[in-house]
Amino acid sequence: MTAPQRRGRAARQAAPVARQVNYRQLRNPFTPQVVFSEDEVAGLHATALRVLQELGIRILLPEARKMLGAAGAIVDDDMVRIGSDMVAAALATAPASIPMRAPNPARDQTYENGALIFSAAGGCPNVSDATNGRRPGDLASFTDAIKLVQSFDVIHKMPIAPEAQDIPINLRHLETTLAQLAYADKLLTVFARGTGQAEQCFAMVQMGLNLSADAFAAATWVSTVINSNSPRMLDVPMAQGIIDFARAGQMTIITPFCLAGAMAPVTVAGALVLQHAEALAGIVLAQVAKAGAPVSYGGFSSNVDMKSGAPAFGTPEHIKMQLGAGQLARHIGLPWRSAAGSAGNTADPQSVHENIMGLWGAMSAGATLTLHSAGWLEGGLTFGFEKFICDIEAVQTLAELCAPVDASAAGMAFDAIRGVDPGGHFFACPHTMERFDTAFYAPINADLSTFGTWTANGAQKAEDRAAEIVRQTLADYTQPAGCAEAAERVARFVADTRKAGGAQPLTG
Amino acid sequence: MTAPQRRGRAARQAAPVARQVNYRQLRNPFTPQVVFSEDEVAGLHATALRVLQELGIRILLPEARKMLGAAGAIVDDDMVRIGSDMVAAALATAPASIPMRAPNPARDQTYENGALIFSAAGGCPNVSDATNGRRPGDLASFTDAIKLVQSFDVIHKMPIAPEAQDIPINLRHLETTLAQLAYADKLLTVFARGTGQAEQCFAMVQMGLNLSADAFAAATWVSTVINSNSPRMLDVPMAQGIIDFARAGQMTIITPFCLAGAMAPVTVAGALVLQHAEALAGIVLAQVAKAGAPVSYGGFSSNVDMKSGAPAFGTPEHIKMQLGAGQLARHIGLPWRSAAGSAGNTADPQSVHENIMGLWGAMSAGATLTLHSAGWLEGGLTFGFEKFICDIEAVQTLAELCAPVDASAAGMAFDAIRGVDPGGHFFACPHTMERFDTAFYAPINADLSTFGTWTANGAQKAEDRAAEIVRQTLADYTQPAGCAEAAERVARFVADTRKAGGAQPLTG
Repeated sequence: MTAPQRRGRAARQAAPVARQVNYRQLRNPFTPQVVFSEDEVAGLHATALRVLQELGIRILLPEARKMLGAAGAIVDDDMVRIGSDMVAAALATAPASIPMRAPNPARDQTYENGALIFSAAGGCPNVSDATNGRRPGDLASFTDAIKLVQSFDVIHKMPIAPEAQDIPINLRHLETTLAQLAYADKLLTVFARGTGQAEQCFAMVQMGLNLSADAFAAATWVSTVINSNSPRMLDVPMAQGIIDFARAGQMTIITPFCLAGAMAPVTVAGALVLQHAEALAGIVLAQVAKAGAPVSYGGFSSNVDMKSGAPAFGTPEHIKMQLGAGQLARHIGLPWRSAAGSAGNTADPQSVHENIMGLWGAMSAGATLTLHSAGWLEGGLTFGFEKFICDIEAVQTLAELCAPVDASAAGMAFDAIRGVDPGGHFFACPHTMERFDTAFYAPINADLSTFGTWTANGAQKAEDRAAEIVRQTLADYTQPAGCAEAAERVARFVADTRKAGGAQPLTG
Repeated sequence: MTAPQRRGRAARQAAPVARQVNYRQLRNPFTPQVVFSEDEVAGLHATALRVLQELGIRILLPEARKMLGAAGAIVDDDMVRIGSDMVAAALATAPASIPMRAPNPARDQTYENGALIFSAAGGCPNVSDATNGRRPGDLASFTDAIKLVQSFDVIHKMPIAPEAQDIPINLRHLETTLAQLAYADKLLTVFARGTGQAEQCFAMVQMGLNLSADAFAAATWVSTVINSNSPRMLDVPMAQGIIDFARAGQMTIITPFCLAGAMAPVTVAGALVLQHAEALAGIVLAQVAKAGAPVSYGGFSSNVDMKSGAPAFGTPEHIKMQLGAGQLARHIGLPWRSAAGSAGNTADPQSVHENIMGLWGAMSAGATLTLHSAGWLEGGLTFGFEKFICDIEAVQTLAELCAPVDASAAGMAFDAIRGVDPGGHFFACPHTMERFDTAFYAPINADLSTFGTWTANGAQKAEDRAAEIVRQTLADYTQPAGCAEAAERVARFVADTRKAGGAQPLTG
């Protein structure tokens, strides 16, 4: 749903000053909030360097160890110790501003600090909606998720979720890339599950978008999230992904998932030190693989719940870690990703609370990219369609804050105030009539009717109304321009590659 | 529920560095966010001065017009034009820091910019809970609301809601003040419904808290919200309230309720100009009544919903007005109140979304006091008990952000990181065990169990769990120290005053 779409009360004059929000291109209007002094940030960075230099990180991919050793790291069996000189060299070559290209040029982004980019729930094995309940993800629900995501401009980057579990793992990457090309024109995402899969996906994107090899390598057309195995371990597919994507000039988003009290120290600062060390190790590997490769700093640290030991999101500690991660990213001069998300099991006050807390935390922290902005339930185990709609309302609310406020004489409305008697109203005055269509954000899911009307209409909760929006959005979906052609261009390659067995994912 | 209350997994060592959050005394840790340049703020202020000087404000109370006329205002029938010199004089005498005293000294507040003070849902005629549904408020539900509010330290100031509609309006102020004294020890609130009622309430507070007249006059023991009748009108009870409270040295919180597109211009800047002009008029009247009287700037501007014309809350425009109001308050150097709240009809994702947006907006705007922080449904028509619990989770989350992050060597946890092997975990390491009890905020209402466990336990939504917390909190409620004595001290006065007919509210 493209903003602004406005239904007015009646025909009226065109607005002289329309509310202008281009949901497709957002800049964060706020000053980043902080939780550490500059000295403390320097202390966190220095401590992370000590972790890399004195303790090291276990890297399971021999090629990665070899490359890092050749670049000066001390390799001892599978432990790699990385000096601060190597980190400094990597930070000198990692770009601070990364052009990201989408199939639709109007959806291109510049990935840098100051940008405000949202992606939807990613990585979920399951899907949930009001019609079919909670179930394992499949290609049909994955395709529906793509159509939902495509329908809201405020989500800029495609997620891969729910997982298309009905497709064999050697072929799944073909289907998820094909579906993105066929049904969406936003920034594309590919999982890093081995060189074979990555290369097939890269080929599909080049072919589908009709790109020369040079054009593909000149910008980030696809990106992937790299999760370290905290604490201090990088497994085979993740290390291989960093290398493969760097060599192809595509962006890796290095994201330790540091749950304080579980895979990370129980303290906010301790979890951030570990996150920072692991992220720096990934950034070094990317720059060693190819100097200047696009790489994003990443933080997705939160805490476990003290009662159950389960991951928690939208907590005060999550927000503090978001703010601290932003300080660390700016300290090293790189753009970065954060994440919202929720641990709740359904679209209810808890899960909405958790997600909005994370969204505000990410925006307040100055995150370049906020993943899992909409639809993430159960700590990522489920993509909830009604939850997605509830969350879109929140993401759109933040996006609206990017629009400047009109402080002109007309905006300050002295003449309008003069024209309305004390105790009167502004409903019908020209100043209102000229602007009403575009003055305010129109909620997609809020019901603002009176209690009596609401009750008479069935007392629906927001999640019930969201179910209808899901149905309507899927019914209204139209394939973006160029998608049919892109799918057509890769059809033969996909068929042949399927027949040849696709590519097995890397493990280990 | 006093924070931190923590249940551990097992007996373990005392925490060497406990998470320290005193919910009773909060300072806003963040830099206020802005939507206007400094020049634009000056422009808004200057335009508001023009509104007061050139257009004037209609004041229905003759005594107020007479006082303002004597102080230099131009009075023409019931229209009063106030010069910028009078505004400047008022701003010179209005205090920037106001001592607020509570029955319990541990709950005293300094009302100034930088403080972070929350009040619960106020002014609601109705009440709603899972047991008895939605119904008109009565003294029993008002008393339950007091007990709920008293039970959570993060709410600092008593609201008056739901309205005790079973008590005649000439006696209701006696009961609401008595119930506050008898069941709570937090900052007290009195409605401004005429001199007779105000004086009886003031007398009860002096008597109940055993205060001399001088002690009562030396600090704000009770405060009241003054709503202008936007646009540009101050009715009889509100004008009288400003005078009565100023003379008694008690705080008025001058709060135009400017709904953009209805009682205010449709633009954010226009609504703020009107809000600012009306608030300044109230501040001038307070200072004319008594120079140095405690008075708070107030903003509760939002917008109407474009589809229904109904008031909306937690919208992007609401947040922008919060941020702009904070800039205006700092421009004139006064502490100020904002408000959260929701328009939703029940405790669901919509109403929780709306309230959290307003809470983040208020905190980001640097509001001294945030009203309607918990429990406000239907745009204030109903105090929802389950909604109150859902909202308390959000207010507590923000309160937790006030606690500093430990960036000491122990906080950065290098030794703990060294002590855990790659791929291992921190569950049982000493660094974790020493801190686990106090490391994280423990949600009061979140269910973080797995989907399977949650389903097996009945698939309760957050509002269902909140109903149980409401029941348990009311069952666990204990009367604070001193309350029984305070109630005892006013018993005779209340009985006598009841018999004498209390005091009729002012109208007009």
